[in-house]
Amino acid sequence: MPKKVDHEARRREISQALWRIASTRGLEGASLRDVAAEAGISLGRLQHYFRTKDEMLVFALRHIEALAQQRIRERIEALDEEPTPRVVLRACLTGMLPLDEQSRTGFLVGVAHFHRAVHDPSLRTDARDGIPKLRSFFAAQLRLAIQRGEVPPERDADDEAMLLISLADGLSTYILLDVHTPEKAVQLLDLQLSKLFAGVERDAAPHP
Amino acid sequence: MPKKVDHEARRREISQALWRIASTRGLEGASLRDVAAEAGISLGRLQHYFRTKDEMLVFALRHIEALAQQRIRERIEALDEEPTPRVVLRACLTGMLPLDEQSRTGFLVGVAHFHRAVHDPSLRTDARDGIPKLRSFFAAQLRLAIQRGEVPPERDADDEAMLLISLADGLSTYILLDVHTPEKAVQLLDLQLSKLFAGVERDAAPHP
Repeated sequence: MPKKVDHEARRREISQALWRIASTRGLEGASLRDVAAEAGISLGRLQHYFRTKDEMLVFALRHIEALAQQRIRERIEALDEEPTPRVVLRACLTGMLPLDEQSRTGFLVGVAHFHRAVHDPSLRTDARDGIPKLRSFFAAQLRLAIQRGEVPPERDADDEAMLLISLADGLSTYILLDVHTPEKAVQLLDLQLSKLFAGVERDAAPHP
Repeated sequence: MPKKVDHEARRREISQALWRIASTRGLEGASLRDVAAEAGISLGRLQHYFRTKDEMLVFALRHIEALAQQRIRERIEALDEEPTPRVVLRACLTGMLPLDEQSRTGFLVGVAHFHRAVHDPSLRTDARDGIPKLRSFFAAQLRLAIQRGEVPPERDADDEAMLLISLADGLSTYILLDVHTPEKAVQLLDLQLSKLFAGVERDAAPHP
């Protein structure tokens, strides 16, 4: 099926062009025409794949999510440790931070999407659907941690999950603004996790 | 000094035009010409005040910071409670969230600035200078709270301050994306504060 292969190859080329623009001058001011020029194809051909800038941004976001998921999965598989809830959560959260070129560009595409979504309710659907899924996954990990006695049972798993997601977002912003280093952001994330994974007093009865 | 008055009045008009654009279609795509048109003045006259879009954004940011500080001060003064460190921190943090039109627009101007700053190191100076000042102020409040026995002494005031600032930023993003309501974001902020202000066991000795 050479036609399908061409189609996929073309999408990948466009994707890489989007990526280059996002990581250098940013996607905010970039038009479809700019992306076509960067990909070395005509505007008409680009529009065969994406009719609007919003379609292109949503495609870029999906691509980034897939890359991030792969990165996180690889990171968890490469660990020598048992994938406990804490290890899984830490891998996901550090995977959300802009710690290298790929994740940095990914975050910037997310910011470009955010910008348009704030002024366009239809674009907000992605965030409204995606974040609650992530929160549910995190909350399930936290409930497991509560069962394992690693997180105190009085913690609300859904609320703690949303605190972690919001924190990762804010820490990322301040990495990109050079307010703190990537290392410092990871350290702050670990601080939040260590306070959450405070364990349960298993041996609370005083010794005689 | 009528000339000075005119000058201030003109800056205020431009400021309001910026504000209207930020709260509707966003400042990202807006040119100096767009702002001049919105303010009902010529481009040449606008450039008498701001030579570049970046100068205009920095001016808008300063204006927003002044408004936010005033809002937070008024909120603290209006409280019936004693301005304890916790009350002061809560007022500052909720003042950072986009809970009404003014703070929402303020946050959006901040996002427009962020966008450009990511791709322009000179613009990052503002964030690099401003956030550490805020962190120092928060950390001083937390050290006071530790002295008062309201926050456990093992907490690192600077790190906890940066966690709160990052959290407020992330919670704000998800308000604007309709992931959670403003009320939910305030509740999550209160959760973080209540875990931090866990107090100190003053009476740890076991009863006989």
